[in-house]
Amino acid sequence: MKSEVSAVTRVVDKNKGIDKGKGVTWAVSVSEKDSFSSTKAAPFSRWKKGIAVTDFVLRLGAIGAAMGSAVTMGTNEEQLPFFTQFLQFHAQWSDFPVFQFFVFANGVISGYAILSLPFSYVCIVQPHAVRPRLLLMTFDTVMMGLISVAAAGAAAIVYVGHNGSQDANWMAFCQGFTNFCQAASEAVVLSFVAAAFFLCLVPLSALALKSN
Amino acid sequence: MKSEVSAVTRVVDKNKGIDKGKGVTWAVSVSEKDSFSSTKAAPFSRWKKGIAVTDFVLRLGAIGAAMGSAVTMGTNEEQLPFFTQFLQFHAQWSDFPVFQFFVFANGVISGYAILSLPFSYVCIVQPHAVRPRLLLMTFDTVMMGLISVAAAGAAAIVYVGHNGSQDANWMAFCQGFTNFCQAASEAVVLSFVAAAFFLCLVPLSALALKSN
Repeated sequence: MKSEVSAVTRVVDKNKGIDKGKGVTWAVSVSEKDSFSSTKAAPFSRWKKGIAVTDFVLRLGAIGAAMGSAVTMGTNEEQLPFFTQFLQFHAQWSDFPVFQFFVFANGVISGYAILSLPFSYVCIVQPHAVRPRLLLMTFDTVMMGLISVAAAGAAAIVYVGHNGSQDANWMAFCQGFTNFCQAASEAVVLSFVAAAFFLCLVPLSALALKSN
Repeated sequence: MKSEVSAVTRVVDKNKGIDKGKGVTWAVSVSEKDSFSSTKAAPFSRWKKGIAVTDFVLRLGAIGAAMGSAVTMGTNEEQLPFFTQFLQFHAQWSDFPVFQFFVFANGVISGYAILSLPFSYVCIVQPHAVRPRLLLMTFDTVMMGLISVAAAGAAAIVYVGHNGSQDANWMAFCQGFTNFCQAASEAVVLSFVAAAFFLCLVPLSALALKSN
């Protein structure tokens, strides 16, 4: 803004010397500068649009991972082919409250990620919009926390399922229920992948907010 | 910027009518506008400083919570007052790999939060600085993920310790080791409190970045 003011002062200075022609030249040079700054803004806007498109694609990835994780865990069940008179060997995801929370959290996150797509689209159309960006960023952070908690809780149980805990006298059940444990591990990995997508989304939004 | 350019155009228009006095008046009105915008910037800067101070205080809270959590869990041990010829009843945090990771992660986060204080201080002194703010925000997001994972993993184990798992045939050991479980629960809660501090820090940084 200062340069414009000094340009005006120069116009006034020139007028003191009653040199109108040069005064007009100065005014033209200001408008030239203006058009120069608008051409400079174009790649900046394109760069912001690029961030918004990446945001949208990452969101699609997060939806895929969280949904895949919820479905893999939510259909996880194994019946062993042998049983005694009193015992059936049957493992199901809903036997563990941590896995129930895991499926619930991944469902919530899939739903949120789908609902956030229109907002992300608004950011592509209007790359300089601040409010939808701030809203998305805040919710993304909360969802990142939620999915990390769900994935880590399930991972701890899967770990004990695989290795047991001698000190707590907990037996590893994964030697019997291999398919059940395999599917649970896959669901946990998918959930961590979704968390990684959110981990990328948050600083990306910050980068987009930065230059507003 | 447009208003300045139109002011210049008006100066030129006035010059066409050889009215120098009015041309000068226009130039003065531009500088008045300039001083107006600088007085408007003052409360905005103060508002940004407020955010930076809140950021610093939240960081202190996170240090306290994470450090308290690491110490509570890292000194967690219980020896029951009875033992048989072959068995000693002794529980220690390092019996569980998840608790080992928990102590490690809380230690790392305490260290990070302490190291981040000078950067946070820079943001108080220079409220409009973008780079330290972006740097802090990115690392805060990663640390929020780490502490959520650590807290949730430990929470899952503490949950099974309290309630057991009938289907997996895992016994609840907390009926015996009450003090051990009490301390572990406290450490987990403290760790979630630290995660909540980071959850506040991330959108706060975004808010500070917004208007740069």
